[in-house]
Amino acid sequence: MLRPGGRPRAGIVATGSELLTGAIDDRNGPWLARELSDRGFEVAHLLLVGDRPDDLAEALRFVADAGVELIVTAGGLGPTADDLTVEMVARFAGTDLVLDTAMEAHIGGILTRWAARTGFAGPALEAANRKQAMLPRGATPLLPVGTAPGLVVERPGGPLVVVLPGPPRELQGMWPAAIEAAPFAALLKRVPPAAARSLRYFGLPESEIAATLREIGSRRDLTDVEITTCLRRSELEVDLRPQPGAESVAAALAEELASRHAKHLVSAEGTSTDELVARALLASGRTVATGESCTGGLLVGRLVDRPGSSAYVAGGVAAYSNEAKTALLGVPAAMIAEHGAVSPQVARALADGARERFGAGIGVGITGVAGPDGGTEAKPIGYVCFCVTTDDGTVIARDPVLPGSRGDIRERSVDVAMHLILRAASGLPA
Amino acid sequence: MLRPGGRPRAGIVATGSELLTGAIDDRNGPWLARELSDRGFEVAHLLLVGDRPDDLAEALRFVADAGVELIVTAGGLGPTADDLTVEMVARFAGTDLVLDTAMEAHIGGILTRWAARTGFAGPALEAANRKQAMLPRGATPLLPVGTAPGLVVERPGGPLVVVLPGPPRELQGMWPAAIEAAPFAALLKRVPPAAARSLRYFGLPESEIAATLREIGSRRDLTDVEITTCLRRSELEVDLRPQPGAESVAAALAEELASRHAKHLVSAEGTSTDELVARALLASGRTVATGESCTGGLLVGRLVDRPGSSAYVAGGVAAYSNEAKTALLGVPAAMIAEHGAVSPQVARALADGARERFGAGIGVGITGVAGPDGGTEAKPIGYVCFCVTTDDGTVIARDPVLPGSRGDIRERSVDVAMHLILRAASGLPA
Repeated sequence: MLRPGGRPRAGIVATGSELLTGAIDDRNGPWLARELSDRGFEVAHLLLVGDRPDDLAEALRFVADAGVELIVTAGGLGPTADDLTVEMVARFAGTDLVLDTAMEAHIGGILTRWAARTGFAGPALEAANRKQAMLPRGATPLLPVGTAPGLVVERPGGPLVVVLPGPPRELQGMWPAAIEAAPFAALLKRVPPAAARSLRYFGLPESEIAATLREIGSRRDLTDVEITTCLRRSELEVDLRPQPGAESVAAALAEELASRHAKHLVSAEGTSTDELVARALLASGRTVATGESCTGGLLVGRLVDRPGSSAYVAGGVAAYSNEAKTALLGVPAAMIAEHGAVSPQVARALADGARERFGAGIGVGITGVAGPDGGTEAKPIGYVCFCVTTDDGTVIARDPVLPGSRGDIRERSVDVAMHLILRAASGLPA
Repeated sequence: MLRPGGRPRAGIVATGSELLTGAIDDRNGPWLARELSDRGFEVAHLLLVGDRPDDLAEALRFVADAGVELIVTAGGLGPTADDLTVEMVARFAGTDLVLDTAMEAHIGGILTRWAARTGFAGPALEAANRKQAMLPRGATPLLPVGTAPGLVVERPGGPLVVVLPGPPRELQGMWPAAIEAAPFAALLKRVPPAAARSLRYFGLPESEIAATLREIGSRRDLTDVEITTCLRRSELEVDLRPQPGAESVAAALAEELASRHAKHLVSAEGTSTDELVARALLASGRTVATGESCTGGLLVGRLVDRPGSSAYVAGGVAAYSNEAKTALLGVPAAMIAEHGAVSPQVARALADGARERFGAGIGVGITGVAGPDGGTEAKPIGYVCFCVTTDDGTVIARDPVLPGSRGDIRERSVDVAMHLILRAASGLPA
């Protein structure tokens, strides 16, 4: 828990009635929360509010009352009547809206090009242009990424308000201009660096980290470091966020946590597993190919998610049926008959088959019981066989019983496979 | 926009510092928002707050001040010191905590079984047990799904508070018991049914729906229907939520919207595309197989995501390299040399190859330029060739230029392919 008074606080307000019916997930709040935290703010509240003027006004007042120095809003900048953010922020800042003619001309240019492309034009478009160019007096405008400008609004005696558009691509695209705008840049200069440390483990129970933290806490004062442990499927992430002045405490704690659980440590710098796998494969000069049964393409889909992945991903086969395992990856039908489709033997044959058919250096085989049906006493739901084989004869095999629903089991299986690929590509012992 | 006064309002408070550093996305808020909206509440606010007592207390007060009749909290029920929700809700309700001995025994049983399995036991466990059995006086406890009980807390003259655990599986597992608890069940009886309608379109621009709504709005009074249009990649969802008394207006509007854009309508009942594809494939008696280049397994991964998918998914090949396209799916090397790997011809060959190799009734081929590199003037980034072929000779081909980033293009490609499979499996014209 963070003690009050240490860091400047910030609040985030995301608007849109569709966020409150569950029709759409808010992608801006978490993105902004990470940006602000990484820049050293303590994020006090993240509010989602509908497109209702009173609710929006109350949300701004509530966040301001929580003693924040910064409010970032997302959404509600569009041309329609229920896009209220600019008007409500102006009221909150105690100012009025005036037409920014330079912005009007700028938006007009965007809309003209759009109209030429789509064939849509007329008075509705002109009204939209004018509404979007009405800005709070004295605000610093941010050029549109789509058609709506953003804003940095100073409020006498109150928090700075940064107003950003709702579409995530526009919001993220406008962010660099926002942090360079003079009032926001001045505030950022006063924020002490986050100096956060992030450690990621694989296969380590949360209770082990909790016990280690208790033990270290009995010897050292850790109260000025906010410690968050967060279990994401098979990975455990430990975030350390020091109060200003406690940076060296966090750094020493990170060192100790890394060395105490070195066997399970994936990264002490917060590097993602996907990034580590890509680096290891590129360094090894090998390509990878998959033969997937229960994960049905999810693993190869994740591997090719990274730009540039064609340099180290040869491909994959999702072979759900026994016939497909035999026809596409050469798994002997007799082997399936003898050991069952879910067996270490078939996982090995899937790995070898994928490696050979794709001409890859590393092959991965996955076959398991994802449920909800099909479990037996010997092979219960969650039983998954993994095998990674390489062209120099390394064989890494695992057959755990993974917990959770069908979706959980498939996602965890992909996690496990990623870590086995990392092991094989790094040349670690099986 | 929803006019005030129509529906009982509800607020959601999700706790956890990890939600405010962006380390983890809140999955409970959107789930609860949909549940409450579908049960007829207007969700006023969704707040994410850190594990800080003052912030949590202020959040509860703020939501109560917004005139809600119900507050649902998620998280902060664990055994550690920063799990504060029960204590803060008790304070909010003006009551104190008392030990619930029956609950203590119940949690004790759960912990004993856990300790036997994991080998972890001792005084820390007993303290956790006791803390989790301290409940607000007079509250209705909800049996744990994990180890933490939930609560329904009545506050004199204030909103009802439903307290749920943070892990999504526990929260969703406890929900049926929550809505059956007497105080919540009594409140729910007073809430008018949502009577919401949801229409989903594919390939329809948002501006078309906006124009139609404007035109209908000029003839009819639609003010008592909250209309949300929400673009999710290639699909456009229109949600209609009537105020009590305006159900027939919403129903008539749904009919009109369905018939006005019938060509692009996917579902007038909110059925998901995945569900429609599964139903159509099962009804057709055909299996589907994929040959994927730029989507690299994402399509087959999505197809097998549904339980029971082995009945209609034969499998798929992610063939990134030209060699793999030839070796695994029989795409002639000469064809690739002549037309390029991204071409309608190769898409067709991928579809036919997948269908034949997997012995499937329907084959899907996808090849495109997902970026960020590799675009040319003739085949820019976003150019994707699709082909669906069936064993009775149907050929459906498309080659659009899709907008967005690498991730967007790949996700949209999967959407497009799903709709083409739906078309082929339903026997619609190419």
